[in-house]
This record gives sequence, structure tokens and C-alpha cells, in this order.
Amino acid sequence: MALIVQKYGGTSVADSDRIRNVARRAAKAYDEGNDLVIILSAMAGVTDRLIQMAREAAPEPDRRELDVLLATGEQTTVALLAMMLKEMGYPALSLLGYQAEVLTDCSFGNARILEVGAARIQHHLKNREIVVVAGFQGFDPRGNITTLGRGGSDTSAVAIAAALKADICEIYTDVDGIYTADPNICPKARKLDAVCYDEMLNMASLGAKVLQIRSVGFAKKFNVPLHVRSSFSEEEGTMVISEEPAMETVVVSAVTHDKDQARITLKKVPDQPGTAAKIFSPITEAGIVVDMIIQNTRAGGQTDLTFTVPRSDFKKAMSIEEKVADEIGAQEVFGDENIAKVSVIGVGMRNHSGVASLMFSTLAKEGINIAMISTSEIRISCIIEEKYTELAVRVLHTAFGLDRED
Amino acid sequence: MALIVQKYGGTSVADSDRIRNVARRAAKAYDEGNDLVIILSAMAGVTDRLIQMAREAAPEPDRRELDVLLATGEQTTVALLAMMLKEMGYPALSLLGYQAEVLTDCSFGNARILEVGAARIQHHLKNREIVVVAGFQGFDPRGNITTLGRGGSDTSAVAIAAALKADICEIYTDVDGIYTADPNICPKARKLDAVCYDEMLNMASLGAKVLQIRSVGFAKKFNVPLHVRSSFSEEEGTMVISEEPAMETVVVSAVTHDKDQARITLKKVPDQPGTAAKIFSPITEAGIVVDMIIQNTRAGGQTDLTFTVPRSDFKKAMSIEEKVADEIGAQEVFGDENIAKVSVIGVGMRNHSGVASLMFSTLAKEGINIAMISTSEIRISCIIEEKYTELAVRVLHTAFGLDRED
Repeated sequence: MALIVQKYGGTSVADSDRIRNVARRAAKAYDEGNDLVIILSAMAGVTDRLIQMAREAAPEPDRRELDVLLATGEQTTVALLAMMLKEMGYPALSLLGYQAEVLTDCSFGNARILEVGAARIQHHLKNREIVVVAGFQGFDPRGNITTLGRGGSDTSAVAIAAALKADICEIYTDVDGIYTADPNICPKARKLDAVCYDEMLNMASLGAKVLQIRSVGFAKKFNVPLHVRSSFSEEEGTMVISEEPAMETVVVSAVTHDKDQARITLKKVPDQPGTAAKIFSPITEAGIVVDMIIQNTRAGGQTDLTFTVPRSDFKKAMSIEEKVADEIGAQEVFGDENIAKVSVIGVGMRNHSGVASLMFSTLAKEGINIAMISTSEIRISCIIEEKYTELAVRVLHTAFGLDRED
Repeated sequence: MALIVQKYGGTSVADSDRIRNVARRAAKAYDEGNDLVIILSAMAGVTDRLIQMAREAAPEPDRRELDVLLATGEQTTVALLAMMLKEMGYPALSLLGYQAEVLTDCSFGNARILEVGAARIQHHLKNREIVVVAGFQGFDPRGNITTLGRGGSDTSAVAIAAALKADICEIYTDVDGIYTADPNICPKARKLDAVCYDEMLNMASLGAKVLQIRSVGFAKKFNVPLHVRSSFSEEEGTMVISEEPAMETVVVSAVTHDKDQARITLKKVPDQPGTAAKIFSPITEAGIVVDMIIQNTRAGGQTDLTFTVPRSDFKKAMSIEEKVADEIGAQEVFGDENIAKVSVIGVGMRNHSGVASLMFSTLAKEGINIAMISTSEIRISCIIEEKYTELAVRVLHTAFGLDRED
């Protein structure tokens, strides 16, 4: 008997049949005597359709009103699930973001959760009701509807689990856990039984795309154990938990890759105080996230500066930097969209030397050139030519002893 | 400069283009210096689609959850309209039922408005904002979403207009006003400049279908002037207002008809106390609304009892009454679906005699037999064979001097 928060993503509630599947899973957990809170996303594709509808209404839809519109997606799925549960004879009810007291700031479209008042949910749990909560949405101090941004339902689930001091937060998705690498390109990838929050934080940002990065930070902060698993199978998935001593015996837990990368280089930048600010401020103001930055000092008071941005922002970033280069007197700007980032990740790295050199030599052996490197305590990332991505992932996976034994 | 409440029905917001049309109308009224509150329905067809979706989830969807689902319809249109107005440069925002403080009882699916707290709307009006409110929805004292039943947006509009003491409540629909008869069957029907609440109450219940009957009662109670008009033209529509002395000079204002009628007769019912209750209680319990009732006393302590129900409930009502007839010892039950109700309505009737006899003789002249009659202070209704409906409307329209002069 535990207090379980289950979160189901868009593909798990994509149609009536799948919502019925969710109802059956919920009923099972309830029948086992657990207290149950279920967080739902909108049906897969619905949020995109609503955004499209909004764009037809106004090319740049007002953000407050867009949130009012988007909130209908989760409102639909929670009502349908609660209906099905009632039909099956279970006491259930739906709560929208404001009814579940998910208080956020006023950043429409990308709101942060300030507080979850658990009183109303707890009241219903005490009555042995299954509480179905609309993910992705909250309300601000003035009573406006807000949404939490892409993947926000994960954050809703973790925040509600934290507020309720739930025993576990199960994240149901269309994959059955977290793998040592993308199985599509690395056939020997293994499912991980457990990763720690910090590893997951690095994986999510590097493209594992299973969990919204913000939700993992939240889970770490409030120490909410996550269980990432498939809504289409009964198999155990991957636990995302606090670091445990045993984890350090594994040096590298996973190899990730990210093709959503582009590189911009400014050549012969005058090496003066304030130059970096002139280069990066307009990029940041345009809402573009800069990832890696490398600066090589050159002779003659000039330097080359290289950085990476998401590929979708590449054109915008290039045109900004072409103007900047004129202003600061850089010689030229050039860009490259054919790059990718491969990374090795593991908390065990902290206590092991030689990870970087094994990574570099493994890539070198295959003739893969490393264009940029960045490191953190538990991660090493290399920018390489895009065409080598799959090869790089596979050889690193083998080199770090991650291959599944058949 | 006035405080105007505008309500747009489903066909007026059926798609992006039509919502844009609403935005233009609203902008015009705003530019003329008026304070503006707009109440919207869901897009035409959406509520039916949502009900269908709910029925796929559960054959008899939980009523609380159905309201959560249905409320998304109006949530969508208000967000879209507010976006368009913002895009056009107008200060606007949407409010859902609970945000607009539309407090109702807990009768999910058919809630009654208890109170409209106008504070939040007034706050925004003071800032010269256009307030766009989701019709059809409210919230109950426990914070649950409720809906007001079919056509509930009219009631929302009138209740909000009453709470705000609005100068006028404009009901925009796909017809350009209220006619002396249905123009589709009576080519000489004229648009009425004004009718009084009581006339409208009788017309709505008799099938004019322009305004939800409940909203007219509300408007009468709080003396909210209504203006029923088309969202597709600039023409003036029909005012629905308190009775004015001038109205009494017209004896009959309109001829209405209603084909959604069926008749059930119980033959040779033992004439004992309590029999009527036995006949009608099970019908009422099944949610069927009985309209006209006629009882003829017969010789030998037996009576024939005839009543009408909506045609869609006919089969259900028949099978109920067949059981009842057995129990109470009636001789037989027979039903007739091929009937219609035609009515003449007018507050002027109160001070004029001879309306009934003119109606009966006009029908008789055409060989139309009258099966049942019911009268009120301002209305006379006759049940006739369905096939004579159109003819009856036309001849009565002419007889009572309502024909348009060409």
C-alpha cells in the first residue's frame, strides 16, 4: 500500500482505446490497495493542432490566451479517463490545474510551479477516490490559466508527487525505460535498471527526450523517486533516483548523441574586453540557447570564437552574427550545420581517470575528428561531423563496456 | 456610450473566419466608446462531437466529467476571439465560467445560475478591456465545473448582463430577428420590431428556437432588454422587452408551430382518485415532459385521457403507459405521431375577445380538424394533423392580419 503518482504521456492517451488501457492500469494499482493520483498529457498531436489553430487566429497569438486554448487538451483527457473509471465502477474525479492548486508564476507558455497545495487532492484520496489531474497546466496568483511548456506534464507529476510526499512517481511513456544508448542506432544498447538524477539531467539535455529536464531537477530537489516505464507493457522500466554508492562502480552509464546542433565561428575577433558580450547578448535576446563555446587565443590580439546553437535557430543566429561581426570588426563568420554532439555520461567518472583519453582515442581509431570538446564532472561531450554520429555511438558504447551480452 | 453585452451563438463562431467577423463587430462597438462584454458559445457542432466522444468513453458518461469535457468547447472559442482582438490591437482577455464568477448549483449538465459576481468583469471593463466570457459554463460552490444545458449561453449572457446592469444584451444568431411566423413555410411572415418577454416565453417554448426559454425568464425577472439579431448583417433585429402599452393594440403578434409532438390516449380509464398520478408519475420520472393534457368525463365512471409528449420520447412513453394501463385497468392505449401544434400568441389577446373563435373558424374553413386545445392568457394552441401544419400557419397568419404588405 503506497501513494503512487502515475503520469501518462500523449502517446499513452492518444485515443479512446489507449485511455481505456490507462484506466485498466490505474484500476489494477487501486485494487492493490494503493492511493492513486494520475496526471495526464493531452492526446498526442492535439497540442500541435491547437497551436496551429491559434496561429490561424493570430500569427503571434497572445500568450495568455494561447494557454487558455492549450489547457483544453489535458482537460479533455482527464474528463475521458475519469468517465471510464466511473463506468468501471471506481470512484474517480478529474481536477484541472487550478482545482489541483498548481500555483505558478505568470510566465504564460513557460510557467514555473511556485507551489502545489495538496489539500484538495488529499481530501479526495482520503475518500479513496482516484484523482485524475490535468498535467501541463496551472494558474497564476491572479487566477489566470498558465501552461508549463513542452513536456510540462512531467513537471506537474513530479511537483504533485513532491507535494503529496508520494512513495513513487511513475512516468508512463512509449519507451520501456532509459537505455545505455539509442537502440535505433546501437543494437547492443541495454536498458538501465537505475540512473541517478544527475546522470538523467545530463541525458535529458543531450537528447534522450524521455523526461522533461525540468522535471528531473524538481525530482532531485525534492527527492522524488521516478520510475520511467512503458504504458504498453508490464515490464519494469528504469528508476531515476538519488545517487547510490553502487552506481560509482560503473564508470560510464550511457552514450548519448544529439544531431540538433549547428556551429558558428567568428574568425579574427579583436581580443578586447566586452567583445564576448557583444557577440552573445543579441543571440540570447533572440531567445537562442548557446550550448558549447570555445575561444582560441591567437597572435596579434585576435581570436577565433566558436559556439553551438540548436539547428533550428541556426539561420537566425547566423544573420545576427553577421551584423555583430561588422560592428566588432571580426574578419568573417562561417557556420556548419552538419555536426552532431556525442557524449559519455556517468557519475562513476568522478573517481576514474582516463575516461576522456579513452573517448578521444576510440574516436581517433575510427578516423573521427573532434571539432569541439566540453566536459563536466560526470559528462564528456564531443562535436563531430554529423555523418559519423551512429558509428561514434557504437564504438564508444563498446569501448566503455556497455554492450549487451547476447 | 453604453455597457453592451453581446452573445454569439455556435453558427456565429463556427470557424476562424466567422470568429474574425465577431472580432470586427466587437471592435466597432468598442470604437464607438461602449464598454463591451462578449459571451460565446462553442463552435457549431463541437458540443455534439464532444458528447459523442464521451459516449465512446462511457455509454452513460458521468455528468460531472461530461461537464469538464463540454466546457472545453467555449474555452476554445473565447481564447481564439481574445487572440484575434489582441492581434487587431484591442485590449481583450478571455474569462472562463469560474473566472467570470458564474456561480451555479451542482446540477451537472443542467445547472441553474445562483449568482454572478460581477467584480472581476467590472475590474477589466474599468481598464477599458473587452471581456470575452465563455458561455454555457459556471462553477458550483465546491469549485466543480458545471454547464447550463442546451442553449445555456443565452442564459449566461442574460445573467451577466443583469449582474452588470448592462444597457442591453445583444443576442447574435443566424437569423435576423423574430418573425410573425416561420418564413420557410409562411412567405408573408414579417420581422417583428419588438415583442415583450411574455410573448417571447410563449414563442420559445412553442418552437421559435431563437432564444433559450430560460434566458428569457431571466431577462424578464431582471428587466434586461434583449436585442435578437443576425451576426451576418447590419440590420436591426427584434427587441425583447417589457410590455409596453402600444403592444396591446396588436391582438396577435405571431403564429407558431411545433411538429415535435406526439399524442398518447388511454381509453376507458377508471375514474378514481389517484389515477392521474399513476399515469403521469412514471412518465415524469423517466424525464419526459408532458405538454397538453385533456380528460373527457364519460358515462359509467370511465374517462378517456389524452396527452402530448415530445416525439423523441414517444416510444418510451408508450411502453410506460402500456404497463400503466394494465395496472390501472384502462381498456387500451393508442398513440399518434402524426400531429403538430399551432399557436397564436399576443399580449393584446388579454383585452380582445373573439381570438379563439376566429382561430377555430379559420381552421374549420380549411377542413382542418382540431384534436386538442389549450389556452393561456396570451396564447391559444391547437393540436392538428401534422400534414396541415403549413396550411394552418399560413391561413392563421392571414386571418390575424399579420401578412406583410408587398
